[in-house]
Amino acid sequence: MLASWFTYEAAPVFSLVESFTLKYFLKLCGFEAGEGVFTPGGSMANMYAPAMARHRLFPENKKHGMYSCQKLKMFTSEDSHYSVTKSANWLGLGEENVLRVRTDATSRIDTTELEVAIVRSIAEGDKPLIVSVTAGTTVFGAFDDLNRVADICQQHQIWLHVDAAWGCAALFSERHRPLLAGLERADSVSLCPQKMLGAPLQCAMFLMKHTGLLAGCNAACAEYLFQIDKYYDTAYDTGDMSVQCSRKIDAFKLWFMLKARGSAWFRSYVDNAMDCATYFHAVIIQNDHFKPVRSEYQFTNICFWFIPKRLQLSAPDEETEEWWSEVYKVTLALKEKMVKKGTLMVSYSSYPQNKLGYFFRLVVKCVPEPTIDRMDFIIKEMIALGSDM
Amino acid sequence: MLASWFTYEAAPVFSLVESFTLKYFLKLCGFEAGEGVFTPGGSMANMYAPAMARHRLFPENKKHGMYSCQKLKMFTSEDSHYSVTKSANWLGLGEENVLRVRTDATSRIDTTELEVAIVRSIAEGDKPLIVSVTAGTTVFGAFDDLNRVADICQQHQIWLHVDAAWGCAALFSERHRPLLAGLERADSVSLCPQKMLGAPLQCAMFLMKHTGLLAGCNAACAEYLFQIDKYYDTAYDTGDMSVQCSRKIDAFKLWFMLKARGSAWFRSYVDNAMDCATYFHAVIIQNDHFKPVRSEYQFTNICFWFIPKRLQLSAPDEETEEWWSEVYKVTLALKEKMVKKGTLMVSYSSYPQNKLGYFFRLVVKCVPEPTIDRMDFIIKEMIALGSDM
Repeated sequence: MLASWFTYEAAPVFSLVESFTLKYFLKLCGFEAGEGVFTPGGSMANMYAPAMARHRLFPENKKHGMYSCQKLKMFTSEDSHYSVTKSANWLGLGEENVLRVRTDATSRIDTTELEVAIVRSIAEGDKPLIVSVTAGTTVFGAFDDLNRVADICQQHQIWLHVDAAWGCAALFSERHRPLLAGLERADSVSLCPQKMLGAPLQCAMFLMKHTGLLAGCNAACAEYLFQIDKYYDTAYDTGDMSVQCSRKIDAFKLWFMLKARGSAWFRSYVDNAMDCATYFHAVIIQNDHFKPVRSEYQFTNICFWFIPKRLQLSAPDEETEEWWSEVYKVTLALKEKMVKKGTLMVSYSSYPQNKLGYFFRLVVKCVPEPTIDRMDFIIKEMIALGSDM
Repeated sequence: MLASWFTYEAAPVFSLVESFTLKYFLKLCGFEAGEGVFTPGGSMANMYAPAMARHRLFPENKKHGMYSCQKLKMFTSEDSHYSVTKSANWLGLGEENVLRVRTDATSRIDTTELEVAIVRSIAEGDKPLIVSVTAGTTVFGAFDDLNRVADICQQHQIWLHVDAAWGCAALFSERHRPLLAGLERADSVSLCPQKMLGAPLQCAMFLMKHTGLLAGCNAACAEYLFQIDKYYDTAYDTGDMSVQCSRKIDAFKLWFMLKARGSAWFRSYVDNAMDCATYFHAVIIQNDHFKPVRSEYQFTNICFWFIPKRLQLSAPDEETEEWWSEVYKVTLALKEKMVKKGTLMVSYSSYPQNKLGYFFRLVVKCVPEPTIDRMDFIIKEMIALGSDM
């Protein structure tokens, strides 16, 4: 688990393990002929996408830099992960060239506005580089409509990247796989089995449907490390395809989970987590102590406010500004109470896009295995701690 | 060890451990008032340096990108790590804007040529962004003259980055610390305790003498993750200073080594590794089966050719092109023999800068603790396997 890897020689077995695991997930995503690389987390995986898209479009930039390049535009939704913007800064594309398209009432990217934004930037003489959509947004767990976005990208010949860091768990479930319909039409995808699937941190992948681009963009061909004359097939020395040098064997734990448990285990765990989240939402929507932020959820992120007795209302029109301000304060105070008692770790969040203040954000993961009893415990414990606040 | 971290709330104890460990190494480097971040390996640490230098010089690039920026030049030696060049590609600076200055007979950067190159690029209207020098080069373990380079950088107001990924072990040794003389004058440094010091992979740091730049350059201020209204001091939420999101607790193993063993342990282990390398070099330089590539070494990288009996010469002028070609072939063949027998893992390398073909490159590390007996074993085993080749 702590071995260093960058060539077959440095860690032969782990090279094969990584190769097997990448192929397994490439196939799962419908990228049979593609290639991939393990990355230290989802943010780095999301940074690979514009780097690869840029290299495909302007391979000469590797040598010359961005100085005289046509202005490149990135498109994403206002609900996407902040790493999309971070990558624009590091790669020299500029944060203002990331156009964050607004989302609809279910937090999915508004595809009409996306297309308008793309057409506008072409008209302005800029080059749309990449559309980075999300399969499982951080706050609400929303899945952008991949097929619709793929149509747009296909029409305008734009790289389609899917940030499935959170939502990739659905790949294993027959019931929930449709959330990712159209993934096979994307150019690249980020996966983080370290999140919902419970692989030990760090375990993230960047996968592409194309081959050759990873080496084309990243290889420095340092002869002192990547010799060609070896007693084995140097096609196994894939280290130079990464932007790192020595790397951890992040593939091993995932490979081991696949071998030890199999995809049936993943499927049952994903379905169970979804069932628990659905149950939780169904219960709180009926309980006066809770007010769900949304009436429906696609994934296991359930967002809600806690309403102590003194703030429970008889009619929705009593929700004044003062009332909301009190509810937001309760979120913070109850969170502190929960942490200090040590019984619950439910995160909280805000949603400035809609001017929504602090609410609880329960994110149900596969491991440790959630149960209906545990969902009930969360509800009971929050009421016990917060009812009289 | 497998915890996820990006805020104090997510892993409070590990936040303090990371903060302590960064401060310890900042002090060791003479950057008392600085700041730092753990990175997934030395290549990523080396990529932080030009990103930070660029942000200090042109903070507006974060927003606007590199499109209309003055051409930025990076300076490094031809012996530096290939990640310096990789970073130029990713960051949009362009590989041709990395000027690889030639090295002298000891593999140190030629500081006269460095200054000439800097003056020339200024005259050409370009902007020298960063000089990235090496403390412990990959092949020969050479340390660039930090004080001399610091003078040059000071005069021209250029960011000085020191890639001490390999050589940072010398920080702990009174005898060998002078190799890093002048480090405290640098703007930033990369350290990899995962290399010579034996910290489990991955464990690397990027440290700066400046404060505020990490957040200034990297922060995306995603309100849904980094809330301001918390029940604790959010100055502990340093996750947004990184280009990653959730990270491994890489600091913990290093902190644990420091606590369990102390700096005296590090000192004795570094001195012992240096002694073993010196011994190895002294022995092979006297032995007809070995031909050292260099007559002197600064660090624990000992590079040499193995000369089987049939290729041993009575006078240096017998070293024909055919003879060299045979010696290079022996390196490859003996390496294969060693690996297949399973007794020795000595890497090999080439040095195209001087048209040197394949030679062995023994790199003595602190852990597991090398001994004189083990050095003798390497010599005896190579002779036993290779003498009659």
